[in-house]
Amino acid sequence: MTTRHRVVITYCTQCRWLLRAQWYQGELLTTFADELAEVALAPATGGVFRIDVDGEPVWNRKRDGGFPEVTELKRRVRDLVAPGRSLGHADRPAGPDGD
Amino acid sequence: MTTRHRVVITYCTQCRWLLRAQWYQGELLTTFADELAEVALAPATGGVFRIDVDGEPVWNRKRDGGFPEVTELKRRVRDLVAPGRSLGHADRPAGPDGD
Repeated sequence: MTTRHRVVITYCTQCRWLLRAQWYQGELLTTFADELAEVALAPATGGVFRIDVDGEPVWNRKRDGGFPEVTELKRRVRDLVAPGRSLGHADRPAGPDGD
Repeated sequence: MTTRHRVVITYCTQCRWLLRAQWYQGELLTTFADELAEVALAPATGGVFRIDVDGEPVWNRKRDGGFPEVTELKRRVRDLVAPGRSLGHADRPAGPDGD
């Protein structure tokens, strides 16, 4: 029985970050559908934007500044839920013509 | 300390219902931001589409057939997380010219 993981995205409702939280959620659920038990969105206030995997913070706006670049976020989540798994194109540096 | 509630939307990934689940999630988080601790999306398979509030099913595709009309879903959630609270226009029957 593979263990499946729980992600929580805590976002500030005053800052209207619901749609941003849903975007990251959709990306994570699309990439890690087999590894994740659930991705929860938790409304909060005070400028918070935090992403935790099984209680461990992989992103915190107040610590990391701003919002994660989605590939970097996926690497951090991958390292916890599917260590060693390739993220395909996202893991390889862009070629000379940027693709 | 008001109790805040947990909603889980379990959706079938084979049927590609992530976006549909996110839509209902966004509606619930917008209407009930103060009452909900979180709304989680849980990927599953086999045609499931189920919405539970604190473990109690308020919608189950296999029992209720198809997908909830969003106002009806909000009424069912309201009755559990904010009994008696008005849902504004959504709670009133449409006027003669349909608004």
